[in-house]
Amino acid sequence: MIDFTFHNPTRIHFGKDSLSHLKEEVLRYGKRVLLVYGGGSIKRIGLYDQVMSILNELGATVWELGGVQPNPRLSLVYKGIDMCRENGVELVLAVGGGSAIDTAKAIVSGACYDGDAWDLFTGKGTNTETLPLGTIVTIPAAGSEMSNSCVITREEDQCKRGRNTPLNFPCFSILNPEYTYSLPPYQTACGVVDIMAHMMERYFTQVENVELTDRLTEGALRTVINNAPIVFEKPEDYDARAEIMWAGCLAHNTLYQTGRVGDWASHKLEHELSALYDIAHGAGLAIIFPAWMKYTLPRGGEKKLAQFAIRVFDVPEDFGTLEEIALEGIRRLEAFYRSLGLTTTLHENGIGAEDFDRMADRCAAMMGGSVGFFVKLNAADCKAIYELAL
Amino acid sequence: MIDFTFHNPTRIHFGKDSLSHLKEEVLRYGKRVLLVYGGGSIKRIGLYDQVMSILNELGATVWELGGVQPNPRLSLVYKGIDMCRENGVELVLAVGGGSAIDTAKAIVSGACYDGDAWDLFTGKGTNTETLPLGTIVTIPAAGSEMSNSCVITREEDQCKRGRNTPLNFPCFSILNPEYTYSLPPYQTACGVVDIMAHMMERYFTQVENVELTDRLTEGALRTVINNAPIVFEKPEDYDARAEIMWAGCLAHNTLYQTGRVGDWASHKLEHELSALYDIAHGAGLAIIFPAWMKYTLPRGGEKKLAQFAIRVFDVPEDFGTLEEIALEGIRRLEAFYRSLGLTTTLHENGIGAEDFDRMADRCAAMMGGSVGFFVKLNAADCKAIYELAL
Repeated sequence: MIDFTFHNPTRIHFGKDSLSHLKEEVLRYGKRVLLVYGGGSIKRIGLYDQVMSILNELGATVWELGGVQPNPRLSLVYKGIDMCRENGVELVLAVGGGSAIDTAKAIVSGACYDGDAWDLFTGKGTNTETLPLGTIVTIPAAGSEMSNSCVITREEDQCKRGRNTPLNFPCFSILNPEYTYSLPPYQTACGVVDIMAHMMERYFTQVENVELTDRLTEGALRTVINNAPIVFEKPEDYDARAEIMWAGCLAHNTLYQTGRVGDWASHKLEHELSALYDIAHGAGLAIIFPAWMKYTLPRGGEKKLAQFAIRVFDVPEDFGTLEEIALEGIRRLEAFYRSLGLTTTLHENGIGAEDFDRMADRCAAMMGGSVGFFVKLNAADCKAIYELAL
Repeated sequence: MIDFTFHNPTRIHFGKDSLSHLKEEVLRYGKRVLLVYGGGSIKRIGLYDQVMSILNELGATVWELGGVQPNPRLSLVYKGIDMCRENGVELVLAVGGGSAIDTAKAIVSGACYDGDAWDLFTGKGTNTETLPLGTIVTIPAAGSEMSNSCVITREEDQCKRGRNTPLNFPCFSILNPEYTYSLPPYQTACGVVDIMAHMMERYFTQVENVELTDRLTEGALRTVINNAPIVFEKPEDYDARAEIMWAGCLAHNTLYQTGRVGDWASHKLEHELSALYDIAHGAGLAIIFPAWMKYTLPRGGEKKLAQFAIRVFDVPEDFGTLEEIALEGIRRLEAFYRSLGLTTTLHENGIGAEDFDRMADRCAAMMGGSVGFFVKLNAADCKAIYELAL
């Protein structure tokens, strides 16, 4: 176990009645509110009306920034920053999934930074304060509601950049599993893959003696794997939706990373993929993660991949060699993804090898020539993984 | 799963170099520091000198409140409150185990309350603010370093009362597993029992569909059970000490309680025991918890106790009936406690039945006639559990 600091100050209100806490939260931070959301889904499920009615009751002044898209764009962030500055916004409230929340995160930091908000993603500049941020979550996936992460894409060059900082923790997040009842199965599936990836990126580490965090992560993975089929069969099963939603929130709140070094190569590899092809992040991860596993297996990954297979997918300890156990674990992971209706190869998505060099180069270059910590990957390794994913 | 709010703002600095964060923390809160600690152990391991040297380097003014005893006393709390008020203390720093931390918690609240600090424990009064509190942990057991709990004993009538409030979360806690190397085996054992009890009190619930928190707790219990024998054999095994210390901190930070109702009868039963007999809290729990399990098993506890046996102690699913599986789990728990050098019966501690009526009455009366939620216990039930523990 390595030294760490753990601090997650986000207040979580979870459950059927969680929206009742919105009032006390708005009163805590201020009544000049910027509402950030995507498209029609929060209106379709009635959440928009509920939120507006609470804000109106409070006498809050509300500015609206709708139209957030998947892989959220820098241009909308700029627009939100201007709205905050022009109107003296006191609280930014994101309603939706990770894209709405990440847009809002970039806004609350950018509004307190004097330069170009993109600087915060390139490391050229930093802020020390933010506007208060609250979230109401409708998609269990990104875990942004309790995470220090934020990922934004600059449209002009399809450059997708993440920023991890304690400044990104929301002040509060409201999670009601009922809001996820009407999620299309595809979006539920992509969310499940993303949630599992947030756990697995941390799980696959070369840091030894991390039994507690290993076991917490294994238990959380099993929970998601057990409950996903239930919500596919019964989309309005509250308890299964609740398990996935709470698991998804904890998956990215940095607890499972304590005392260890995460890997994150699969996320980086996928970011290049979805930046170019606009494939959903979770759908991309379902393709990349198994390929990454197959590639790292003979390069130092055998022991941990076998542990994963045994403890998460119940591969018997006497199944075979460590390598055979690990491969069976990967096979079961792929089968699980496919049971969610997802694909596990690029060609099924009409994606060929034509951009592999460019993607691999950009991926490796981002981290100064290598990506990942479980196994350090250079551009050639990245390309080989894309090839395994074909 | 039931609705919940989860919020734990304590900043944790964990590891070999964690004390290096003390400086930044003191600068954050103020240089007028009240140091709260027990007896000689923090001096013996050199921690007192290290802390004083950092505080002196900063030019801090330090007042000292030593002499904290196990089952910490109200009189010392009063003394600390007076010291804070007389000297304009800006930060209370507890160095030690749960007793030092709980004393400090009662002080930081009491100093911001105009009446008798005992009111805060009887519910007669409440505070809305506290002085800032930091902790440096030397005993993994109470989990007070990241909990909302505080337990204080009023000496004059041996009345032991707990208070759970978000005001009790420390601002920061520093945990270095090396500080626990020289803990006597008995204290290590009592700590392990206490840590496990904090998990099990939450685990045993009648709330259904709590798979995530069940699995997190089971993983944490297994980790403690696996690492305890290692530290008995090799007291300076850093990694095993670290697993127990981090598990002990998370055990009581309220995460494992999210979405469920905890039981806490065993803690209440034990508090009456240790209030009268001054037995160590962990040693008392090793006696009470198995007796409580045996009593609740035929009264609605069968299913969960069997799950505990299977998932935590590897009792095979085909071992027998649910009842037999559960009983085997209890047997393995007792065997584990005994492997730590602890006893699991009252008579081994020279305690007879003479005070059972008084203890049972006080225990049940505290909660308006019944104690516990897994199975609601009245005074007669409490007495029967004490009898099972004989």
